[in-house]
Formats: sequence, C-alpha cells, structure tokens
Amino acid sequence: MYLMRIGAPGAEKPVVRVDDRHYIDVSDVTPDFDERFFAAGGPALLAERVAAGEAREFAGERIGAPIARPHQILCIGLNYSDHAAETGQAVPDEPILFTKSPNTLVGPNDDVRIPRGATKTDWEVELGIVIGRRTSYLDSVEEARDRIAGYCVVNDVSERAFQMERGGQWSKGKSAETFNPAGPWLVTPDEIADVRNLGMWLDVNGVRRQTGTTKTMIFDPYVIVHHLSQFMVLEPGDLINTGTPPGVGMGHDPQIWLQPGDVMELGIDGLGSQRQHVVGPR
Amino acid sequence: MYLMRIGAPGAEKPVVRVDDRHYIDVSDVTPDFDERFFAAGGPALLAERVAAGEAREFAGERIGAPIARPHQILCIGLNYSDHAAETGQAVPDEPILFTKSPNTLVGPNDDVRIPRGATKTDWEVELGIVIGRRTSYLDSVEEARDRIAGYCVVNDVSERAFQMERGGQWSKGKSAETFNPAGPWLVTPDEIADVRNLGMWLDVNGVRRQTGTTKTMIFDPYVIVHHLSQFMVLEPGDLINTGTPPGVGMGHDPQIWLQPGDVMELGIDGLGSQRQHVVGPR
Repeated sequence: MYLMRIGAPGAEKPVVRVDDRHYIDVSDVTPDFDERFFAAGGPALLAERVAAGEAREFAGERIGAPIARPHQILCIGLNYSDHAAETGQAVPDEPILFTKSPNTLVGPNDDVRIPRGATKTDWEVELGIVIGRRTSYLDSVEEARDRIAGYCVVNDVSERAFQMERGGQWSKGKSAETFNPAGPWLVTPDEIADVRNLGMWLDVNGVRRQTGTTKTMIFDPYVIVHHLSQFMVLEPGDLINTGTPPGVGMGHDPQIWLQPGDVMELGIDGLGSQRQHVVGPR
Repeated sequence: MYLMRIGAPGAEKPVVRVDDRHYIDVSDVTPDFDERFFAAGGPALLAERVAAGEAREFAGERIGAPIARPHQILCIGLNYSDHAAETGQAVPDEPILFTKSPNTLVGPNDDVRIPRGATKTDWEVELGIVIGRRTSYLDSVEEARDRIAGYCVVNDVSERAFQMERGGQWSKGKSAETFNPAGPWLVTPDEIADVRNLGMWLDVNGVRRQTGTTKTMIFDPYVIVHHLSQFMVLEPGDLINTGTPPGVGMGHDPQIWLQPGDVMELGIDGLGSQRQHVVGPR
C-alpha cells in the first residue's frame, strides 16, 4: 500500500495511491496519518476501504509529507561506511543518534529554505522508517520487523556550519524550517522485496551527486529500531532518518553548498522521487 | 497565575492553583494546556474564568506535568559555569543544544525509572521555560520576553553512560521514559520578580546535593530563546530545560549514581518542589 497526503499545507487529506493517476480517499476512515492512526492499526485499517474501490483522478494537488508531524524525527548519523569516510570520520561502533525538530517536515516537492546566516547548506538522500507501534526494549532485532509501518524517501537537509561549529551537538544544524522533505509515499513493507537492497540517488541542478544503495548501510533498519528501543520509547508515527550514502556537498573537493535557485531531485527504488527548489532566507 | 494539571496519567484536568488547598477547574475553557491552548493565547484565556472564582479543594489528586506533551523538549547543556567546571568541560561560547524525547515528560512526584542496562543515572534540577507563541528569528534578546508563557521546575534526569559512551551525541542518555519530571506548576512571568535570581536545590535521600541560583547561568532565558529562534521555529508549548547548577552525581568525587529506592527532592524559589522515588528497570 502507498499512503499519501495531498492538499494545501496543514490541510492535507489522507489517501491511498492506486497508480500515478489514481487514488482512493480514506479521509472517512482516518482524519490523518498521525500517531493515533498508527496506534489504532495503521495501514491495515484502510484495507476494506481500498478494496471497495472508487478511485479518483489526481488533479495536480500539492503532495504533503506522507505522515502528519510526528512525535519525533530521530536521525542516524554516519550510517554508510563510504559517507563516514568522505566526512573524515570513523565508522561508528553503534548507531549515532541525533534529532531534528519535528516541524521541519514538509512535502517532497516543497521549497527548501536556506536559513538566515547559513553558509554550508547541504543535501542528504535517506531511507525514512515510520514506526507503527509503541516500541520499547525489543528483545531481538527480528522483533523490529513488525514495528515498522513503512518506508519513505527523506532529504535530511543540513546546515554544516550550524551542525559542526555552533556548540558541539548536531541538532542546531538539522532543525531549520523545511529541512525535512519526506515522501511522496509511505510504502508498506509488503511492497518492498528487500529494504536492504534499494538503489538511491540525488541530483543537484541535473548533476548526479549521490549514488548509493541501502546494501552499504552499517546498521540496517531492524538493527536501528531494536537499538533505539533500548534507550527510549518509540511512538507510533515516529520518523527515523537512517543516514545518507556518499556524495554530500561536504564530501566534495572543493566542497559544494546549496544556493538559492538550485534544484534538488532525489529518489529511492520503489519509494518514489522528490524535487525541491532551494530558496533564500526569509 | 499558577497552572496545574491534576488527575491520572493521560487523563489530567487543567486547573489554576489558587493556594495550597484550592484550585479553579478551567477544563471548560480548554481541554488541556497544549500547543493549541498556548497558540490561542495561553494563560490570558483563563483570566475571566479565574476571576469568576468557584474554587474547589484539592483532594489528593495526582499532579501531572503542568503542560501536555510538547512538540519538543529542548535542553541547554553546561549553562552554569560551576557545573561546566565540575564536569571538566570548558564554558561554552554559545548555548549547547540537545534534545530529549517529548514522551519523557511526567508529573513532579511520579516515579523515575532507571533504564535497563543503566549504570550512571544522575539528577539535574533545572529551570524550565515554556514557549507561548510560535517564535522564529527574533531580532533582539529583549523580544524573547513576551514569547515565554511561564516557568517550571524540571528534573533533567540523565544516564551518563548512555549520554557520553554510546555514540557521541547526548540524546541517547536523556530520553528514557520518566526522565523529565516537570512541575508542579507552570508559573506565569508576572508572578516572578526576577527569573535571573531564583535559588534552586536538590536533595537525594535527604542529603543536599545541588545548591544554586539562576544568577550564575551563563545564558539567561531571554538569551536562550533568542538564540534558539535563529536555528529553528519554536512552537507554542515547547519546553526548554535551561541547564543545571553544580552538584550532579557525575561531579562528585567519588561519583554518585541513583539507585532503586532513592528519593529525589528538588525545587526552585517560587516555582514549587518535586519529590520522586527512583525505581528499577521494567
């Protein structure tokens, strides 16, 4: 199942995508794809409504993030061995956790706004995990499988000067408004043959900058969910950005930073693609 | 005004405290002290209802955190010069930001649970700031004053091994369930003569461990709110823990860690006090 939210920012309607042209409105089943929806059963709740059909045609509606603003956006740092190398950092012994402000979440094709005072704004194509059930102290990595509601494409936009040079912790460089485009779809696990073998890519102004595959993740999605559950309670609808493959702007020589007018395009096999215009500060 | 939430976990009722024995039920004005309440005007909305009176007597109800689960719990690290010294770290040039999982929020007298695998669980009495309005890019420190809905006591419970020895960022050691007792009251700024001159203390098993004053904060509440607004959009109801004075367990020689059966008592002048039993892992 492919979940989407379409409509104006703050007024998105939850739908299930049938194909590129058609969707089924499920707003009579749930007002949103939010914590309450996932806690109540999530995508399984939609099966009957989807089976009943009545597909409508997309009419150029804006696409929102495929989930409502979550309780948390958790992020794993340096989770691809090549990316760790390009940033000059050691491969971590266990997942590195940092967070983004949940209100950074925007639609997959919304503008990305460079924050005031920024000098080193950067891109990161990532696999996003959405948690399906309240999760704490999983006994095994295997148990993590049925705690995952689905996957989506995420652009974990980062301001490297704010992240690295403004006080030691990373959140400051990860939390500016518009810094977390997600979607277009939340794809349920049954639609994906192997989440540990998905190609991923990101272009800036038509030039390929990131090419990778989830094959080279250091910690796979199940390991990550199991690991995080030892330190905190994950809530239904929480989003986890699982790290980026090589090719970020910081990793180039010379380094490349986003500028107003740039266009980012990115995608992951089977999870759809995004396209964002970069705009200057408010 | 002194805002409180009383009742069972998850079913708290918003009230205004009149005195130690009496309160006014305001659940007919707002269902909760949450993001929507603060965005709509916050404590000012309650003035008429409070003026109309009809105080009831407290009847031993549990006290919840004085706000609903917020969009974010932001924390400032090493914000008292003496505390930075006791932990062997330099005084920071600008506020150090880290985050806690919002679902760590509990009532001021609820149990604090040591997480599984923990070896270095520690206490931190802190002044909490609650944001009153959506706040971004404040032009001046002075402007921060009217973005603050109120203040409360917070115990920023921490697991030092998870914080320092498990991957580089601090969130892992700050986000275990029950790790953020807050309250008993959210005190509006008009009730406080000078938030930059409040005594604060914390006892463990009746032994005074922390003694401090907000006078020795490196970055005061207005500086913190102004600073954070340059990096992210603060939402109404967001909670900011502003750092702890000297005397944490990590700072003692030999170091002292919390054990099941311990009792923490803590308070800040004019903001009330808390008392938590420490319990073992689930």
